[in-house]
Amino acid sequence: MRELYVIGIGAGDPDQVTMQAVKAMRRADVFFVIGKGDRKRELVEVRTAILAEHVDGPHRIVEIADPPRDRTPADYTEVVRDWHERRAELLEAAFGEVDGTGAILVWGDPALYDSTLRMLDHVRERGRVRFDYTVIPGVTSVAALAARHRMVLHRVGEPVHITTGRKLREDGLGAGSTVVMLDGDCSFTELTDPDVHIWWGAYLGMPDETLIEGPLREVAARIVTRRAELRAAKGWIMDVYLLRRT
Amino acid sequence: MRELYVIGIGAGDPDQVTMQAVKAMRRADVFFVIGKGDRKRELVEVRTAILAEHVDGPHRIVEIADPPRDRTPADYTEVVRDWHERRAELLEAAFGEVDGTGAILVWGDPALYDSTLRMLDHVRERGRVRFDYTVIPGVTSVAALAARHRMVLHRVGEPVHITTGRKLREDGLGAGSTVVMLDGDCSFTELTDPDVHIWWGAYLGMPDETLIEGPLREVAARIVTRRAELRAAKGWIMDVYLLRRT
Repeated sequence: MRELYVIGIGAGDPDQVTMQAVKAMRRADVFFVIGKGDRKRELVEVRTAILAEHVDGPHRIVEIADPPRDRTPADYTEVVRDWHERRAELLEAAFGEVDGTGAILVWGDPALYDSTLRMLDHVRERGRVRFDYTVIPGVTSVAALAARHRMVLHRVGEPVHITTGRKLREDGLGAGSTVVMLDGDCSFTELTDPDVHIWWGAYLGMPDETLIEGPLREVAARIVTRRAELRAAKGWIMDVYLLRRT
Repeated sequence: MRELYVIGIGAGDPDQVTMQAVKAMRRADVFFVIGKGDRKRELVEVRTAILAEHVDGPHRIVEIADPPRDRTPADYTEVVRDWHERRAELLEAAFGEVDGTGAILVWGDPALYDSTLRMLDHVRERGRVRFDYTVIPGVTSVAALAARHRMVLHRVGEPVHITTGRKLREDGLGAGSTVVMLDGDCSFTELTDPDVHIWWGAYLGMPDETLIEGPLREVAARIVTRRAELRAAKGWIMDVYLLRRT
């Protein structure tokens, strides 16, 4: 493999792909799709639709199944290390077969809560396959959320904090504005601050896009219920939210 | 004016515009360009180049000069309020003349350190012109910085904080990773933390793109010098950086 592109493709709307991303896709001979299992089949289909719309020339799609992983191991560190090694081996085997340019499509932006770049660093450190790579930035789900609520992420001159559900539970809500990603547990329900506003969005830019916004005390239960319904109906959910003290 | 699009156009590379942005531009009859004076003429030219590349149909460009503003007033609040009112009046006049669809192009993403959305809220609150508007998210300079340094913004599962130079000086460097925008004063030079790494970038995606990265103690002086040289040569600079304790 001569070169690899890691391409951010936006938050869900196929039109959120940049011209730069389209040009990189057109240069690629092989697309590596790292599988997430059948439940997220629709996510793979959006990527396939993006390729069908923007790439005319011949190209190959190589699916790489994520190796199975014990989610509740006795020795967490060891299990994760072993899983990373098996994933690296699969990538090495797939990369080794490519004579030309490869591409990996990443939801949102490769720099925000995505493991692709760390995975590639790990494969390069092992030193068994050699390749150079370029990162094409994408529209994040954070920007997509703000756009759909037609809002600025922060108050004038103030900071914005981007964090995970787990860290929100550990650290509580800080000053300024906080965006929460990767929250499968509706961690906002654990906040005890009295005056917080929430702007929530799921499946941003996709046909099932759902937005809820309001004082946290008033809308939290509605978000929890709606989220559970949507997740049950589709089998998966991608959501993100912004919190701010009023 | 029937509708207004507020369009994020990415961090500087004309190809960082999304397909969604291109489609919105093609629907627009009039583009409002809010002037920043001759010093930033090149920024206006990039926008013009984006339009020339993606918009074939007839369209009009209306430049709106920013009203002059006393930068060191005795009564800061009063002067800023007055300036906002004069700017709103100029926008009302410009919007009132449009029969069709308008568009405003915004660097990066409209949700991050950009005043366009607040300005529009203000014009709508005044109630003298009526229009609906849609926000098209864009690639931020934060994502562009990370892409050019081929890095993830945060450590595994950790948060990322986006702030301004002024707030960095006031609050110091927090835990996790911190992105600093709007810093004309190289505020990183005031940090006393011994083990900090910096990833800095200027004119991201543009022909003069400059990247410097390394331990803050070793590269801070080099960034200050290089930044001053670049700014002197071009008359303006756009830069952003990420800080993280090692």
